[in-house]
Amino acid sequence: MKNLAYYNGKYAPLEELTVPALDRAVYFGDGVYEAAVFVGGVPFGMGDHLARFERSMGFVKIAKPMELDEVDAVVRELCRQVGGEGIVYWQATRGTAPRTHTFPENVPSNLLAWAKSKPIGDVSKKLTLITQPDIRYKMCNVKTLNLMPNVMASQAAKDAGCDEAVFVRDGYVTEGSHTNMHIIKEGKLITHPNCELILPGTVRKQMLELCAKLGIEVIERPFTVDEMKDADEVLITSSTSFIRSASTLDGAPIGGRAADVVERLLSAYIEWVERETGNKIK
Amino acid sequence: MKNLAYYNGKYAPLEELTVPALDRAVYFGDGVYEAAVFVGGVPFGMGDHLARFERSMGFVKIAKPMELDEVDAVVRELCRQVGGEGIVYWQATRGTAPRTHTFPENVPSNLLAWAKSKPIGDVSKKLTLITQPDIRYKMCNVKTLNLMPNVMASQAAKDAGCDEAVFVRDGYVTEGSHTNMHIIKEGKLITHPNCELILPGTVRKQMLELCAKLGIEVIERPFTVDEMKDADEVLITSSTSFIRSASTLDGAPIGGRAADVVERLLSAYIEWVERETGNKIK
Repeated sequence: MKNLAYYNGKYAPLEELTVPALDRAVYFGDGVYEAAVFVGGVPFGMGDHLARFERSMGFVKIAKPMELDEVDAVVRELCRQVGGEGIVYWQATRGTAPRTHTFPENVPSNLLAWAKSKPIGDVSKKLTLITQPDIRYKMCNVKTLNLMPNVMASQAAKDAGCDEAVFVRDGYVTEGSHTNMHIIKEGKLITHPNCELILPGTVRKQMLELCAKLGIEVIERPFTVDEMKDADEVLITSSTSFIRSASTLDGAPIGGRAADVVERLLSAYIEWVERETGNKIK
Repeated sequence: MKNLAYYNGKYAPLEELTVPALDRAVYFGDGVYEAAVFVGGVPFGMGDHLARFERSMGFVKIAKPMELDEVDAVVRELCRQVGGEGIVYWQATRGTAPRTHTFPENVPSNLLAWAKSKPIGDVSKKLTLITQPDIRYKMCNVKTLNLMPNVMASQAAKDAGCDEAVFVRDGYVTEGSHTNMHIIKEGKLITHPNCELILPGTVRKQMLELCAKLGIEVIERPFTVDEMKDADEVLITSSTSFIRSASTLDGAPIGGRAADVVERLLSAYIEWVERETGNKIK
């Protein structure tokens, strides 16, 4: 199956699914979301995703559309039906109601979800990066649907012939337009601490667990663009891209001096995904 | 008629209208909007609204879903059919496409619009305010659908038993959660300059034109919360609330010392709305 979508109990092909014009996602972006990969029809990292989903809803006071184990069941069912490798996405929005900024009362939250077939692809491919000013709100730790600055930065990267944008705030790298950013310097992994300026990435979290297992020292502190240029490797993480390294930043070569560390992390990550899902990545 | 909605050529009651789950509004808030009042079925300030709508689309590179005079015709038709007094709303989104941050190619923009019946009400009623930290992105000059911080601030105001939240950034008042904020001090109107920190409000613009006509000096500069507390009057403007004054800020009385100026501005504004629409506000 190419894809399958779900909205408040109803299933349909993604292209055919509709939502009410008064779903608050449509006019306020008033919702939070998650996206994960699945392998052999089984999603990876659901524990981390559901925990963050719950945390996001709590932060913006969106009631759970259903219990988390029920969300888990919907997500798993979509993945199972689509099968193979792909991406599963779900979002909770603050219900369907006439447009008023304040929260609607006695209105249930909406759950939209979909899974679509997409090969994991070659996750060892290096990425090209450009810097972009980080003009975003100070609520980047919540995975909301308010993503226009991310859209604009991502398109700026594409226009420059690059794969991803690196957000820079006050000279420091925060994260990517839809990824987390890290550097390796002298065998140590340096990554922006979790705070309101970055999303607490699930792969970021998982990678730090792998670092502990592999004996790679982790330093959680902001790093500058100059440090990124001077790094032994620049790492990019996200649910769909796993753990990548970068080859250029604003057109100049970067990294490539600690390929063994990148390889160890990526291998361990792929092994984890395959072990947890019980399926080999094709 | 209670309301009427429109989406890409289709008309339906607002509660029945649906949009595709893949409209980029649904998952990125990737669109821009306008809202205006209508009186006797005729919208007010369409010139200003359409100019800002075009400017917003240009800023975020969303193609016009149709020519502006056609948008104008759709908006006017919705107002005419609903009739009486109400609110008309319209938004352009970056089309319907599979979820990818970069812009979709060769996909037309979507136009969603609706008008609903709502009495203008008593615009002379004073408002109660609370301050809220302005954590928003530095793109507040574009009227996008990324409104979660505004939603959260507006609800915080409601939770405090107040009408509106005043955003404060670095000690300075920027604007309200869905209004512009101004103060009157010693006969002069002080208002935050248009920049990336505030929305260029249509009523703000119209009020400044009225100030010129009425001989009220205008100073465009940021003002502090302390200046707001110390102001002779605090003014709140928006398309739906016209020009209001405030009575309290964080529970303490404010303003009330230049009621004549407020009255002159509001009377001139109402006269303008009635003249342009050709209808009396009930």
